[in-house]
Amino acid sequence: MGSINTGPQSDSGFAGLKTNAKRLNDSLQYSCQWGATNDGGMHRLACDDQDRLVREWFIAETTKCGCSHKIDAMGNIFAIRPGENNNIPPIGLGSHLDTQPTGGRYDGILGVLCAMEVLRVIHEANVTTYAPIAVVNWTNEEGAIFPPAMLGSGVWAGQFTLEHGHSRKSIEGKTMAKELERIGYLGSTPCSSQENPLSAHFEVHIEQGTILDRAEKAVGIVTGAQTVRWFRLTLTGRAEHTGGTPMDNRSDALLAAAKVIVEVNKTAIEHGARATVSTAKSSPQSMNTIAGTVELSLDLRAPTDQEMDELEQSLKHAFDAINAEHGTSLAMDVVWDSKATHFDSEMVECVRQSAKEIGCSHEMTSFIGHDSVYTSKVVPTAMIFARCKDGISHNPAEYTRPEEYAQNLARS
Amino acid sequence: MGSINTGPQSDSGFAGLKTNAKRLNDSLQYSCQWGATNDGGMHRLACDDQDRLVREWFIAETTKCGCSHKIDAMGNIFAIRPGENNNIPPIGLGSHLDTQPTGGRYDGILGVLCAMEVLRVIHEANVTTYAPIAVVNWTNEEGAIFPPAMLGSGVWAGQFTLEHGHSRKSIEGKTMAKELERIGYLGSTPCSSQENPLSAHFEVHIEQGTILDRAEKAVGIVTGAQTVRWFRLTLTGRAEHTGGTPMDNRSDALLAAAKVIVEVNKTAIEHGARATVSTAKSSPQSMNTIAGTVELSLDLRAPTDQEMDELEQSLKHAFDAINAEHGTSLAMDVVWDSKATHFDSEMVECVRQSAKEIGCSHEMTSFIGHDSVYTSKVVPTAMIFARCKDGISHNPAEYTRPEEYAQNLARS
Repeated sequence: MGSINTGPQSDSGFAGLKTNAKRLNDSLQYSCQWGATNDGGMHRLACDDQDRLVREWFIAETTKCGCSHKIDAMGNIFAIRPGENNNIPPIGLGSHLDTQPTGGRYDGILGVLCAMEVLRVIHEANVTTYAPIAVVNWTNEEGAIFPPAMLGSGVWAGQFTLEHGHSRKSIEGKTMAKELERIGYLGSTPCSSQENPLSAHFEVHIEQGTILDRAEKAVGIVTGAQTVRWFRLTLTGRAEHTGGTPMDNRSDALLAAAKVIVEVNKTAIEHGARATVSTAKSSPQSMNTIAGTVELSLDLRAPTDQEMDELEQSLKHAFDAINAEHGTSLAMDVVWDSKATHFDSEMVECVRQSAKEIGCSHEMTSFIGHDSVYTSKVVPTAMIFARCKDGISHNPAEYTRPEEYAQNLARS
Repeated sequence: MGSINTGPQSDSGFAGLKTNAKRLNDSLQYSCQWGATNDGGMHRLACDDQDRLVREWFIAETTKCGCSHKIDAMGNIFAIRPGENNNIPPIGLGSHLDTQPTGGRYDGILGVLCAMEVLRVIHEANVTTYAPIAVVNWTNEEGAIFPPAMLGSGVWAGQFTLEHGHSRKSIEGKTMAKELERIGYLGSTPCSSQENPLSAHFEVHIEQGTILDRAEKAVGIVTGAQTVRWFRLTLTGRAEHTGGTPMDNRSDALLAAAKVIVEVNKTAIEHGARATVSTAKSSPQSMNTIAGTVELSLDLRAPTDQEMDELEQSLKHAFDAINAEHGTSLAMDVVWDSKATHFDSEMVECVRQSAKEIGCSHEMTSFIGHDSVYTSKVVPTAMIFARCKDGISHNPAEYTRPEEYAQNLARS
């Protein structure tokens, strides 16, 4: 990871520029015609026909701002406006246009549209930037039908091979590569931060949490992303008759699982972390047979890798005690392990100074993965969070105030 | 419910009779050729072809002991050996030959085979009983593919209508009536305790619990059956992002459900009752979305109806506190409500006296439904429990010792 080359252009060169909140919001709402649902939400899955249409619009709009386009082998689109020094890799401003199956109008979309607004302002003002600027639409950030999430940025940043990216399958058995080809976005540019580099990556994203909304602040300074570790837990006890088996002679896998769930919540709070068991499946599914096995998911999030390890250790001790009490056994398999990310300090300082001018100083780490988590592995990266009404996200009710999200850009 | 007419025949008339443990066990194992599984267990579902074959054998064997047969409209078979007074309804000795899909060789089968052994001993000794004796094979006690359980005895005892019994459907859509017809057991005798009465009903059954096994006693005196109440619980919270939602701003339906499960266990122990949550299903099934709804089953068993009401009240108070803490709501729907059963005191006394002679005095209430629970609604009924190795039942490992189960009959 090198340091960002901001070039000799001083801050004062852009001092008079202002983003247009109305244009940004109109444009965002316009772009949501592709995939809009009746409840005000969005259903625009990576590589579906709505995704194809919004990509066409994105290319047309950025072309109006003097951009040429590179489409890479994962369908990531780089809309590049030349600068003074076109031998320097572009400064990237990116996010994603795909959504959850029952998603909202801001997650990802806000980041791409904010980047487009910055581009429009610069283009209108006839500014030639020191380095080129690339507005990036990353493919399949949501991973909704082609898991995992952040696939396009992940391949670009070398976190997954291209072959892995291409071979991801939907439940219906369609591959990512085939679907990219079908919509015309299996591009010829290598999907690689080495062969198609950026100098930096900025991303505006809806917070998907309540910190800014509770503080009534428009933006937050994201200093990095927390560590995330996912497990699949399988508890095994003894399936027996609910009527015939005395209370003191049971090995009830669901009772043990319940204690695991309670313990996960308690321990996470004690550690200042976040931990959730969100899925439970007991077997056999018979009302009068004590559960013999129960499968749980476990989602842990902590600010640092060390805190994650401590949290995991505390939980393991607690689980051992539960097993000892109930005669159960517990298998704990890691499904995903994402280390903590620390964004580039110089880039974070840019965001910090800009935020200060609009009275915002909340610094936060993201509990959620974003394209920027992967770009930060290979180029200086920073993120700006936008206030999220009531913290609701991955839901049609997702909302951020237009007058506030324009502020994200005032100093971008 | 009238009192049992034991008639003028004194106990001493049968004093010399002894059951044959080897013949009983040989016969039981022989009968298990129909439906035997490789693991030593049984798979003989009501009205399947194995059930048809064991029924044919049952009729042939009881015919050898001077029985004629009535087959009623639910396929219940009454093998009747005449007595001195054939205007008196027969004394019934019954249980069931059907099994769970992965059942053992004793649940139900032991009761029918014990009754057949009693019949053989009496027939060999050329005893003419005061009243006729009927060995009864009740249809579909397990309710494995035609729920609910105890259907044949239930219709006979007027707990369900014949139409209800006939229209029960398997998952494949086959009706009970069609399947009875298919195997040739849709009989012409009315399925009714009024039109085809018994004077009494005795049943030997494997305990399906650990009380006798722990006490190392061969038999137990069953004084009645506990009350059973089943509920379907639905907890509703808020589905939100596991990463984005702070720990102190959640309405986590699965966490609340876990506390419900722990509370059910704790409260049941405090009340000296049995209570089990054996099934759990959370929604949405997404690792990074907090569960918005969870469905649980709740199975409560208490010695008396009043104790059941008290248990339910305590649980409701505890559930209210959980909902208040987590901002969840809980719907609680009764699925089944079976009142406590008290067996006929005179019949229980017969069992008590017989048990005493072999050094057994454990009195117990059944936590599980049996055909006798329904027969007790209309005729004097009593049950004898047989020791169950390690309390394991509804499992191929189900076992009761042949030398001990013969003792069940020594004084029957």
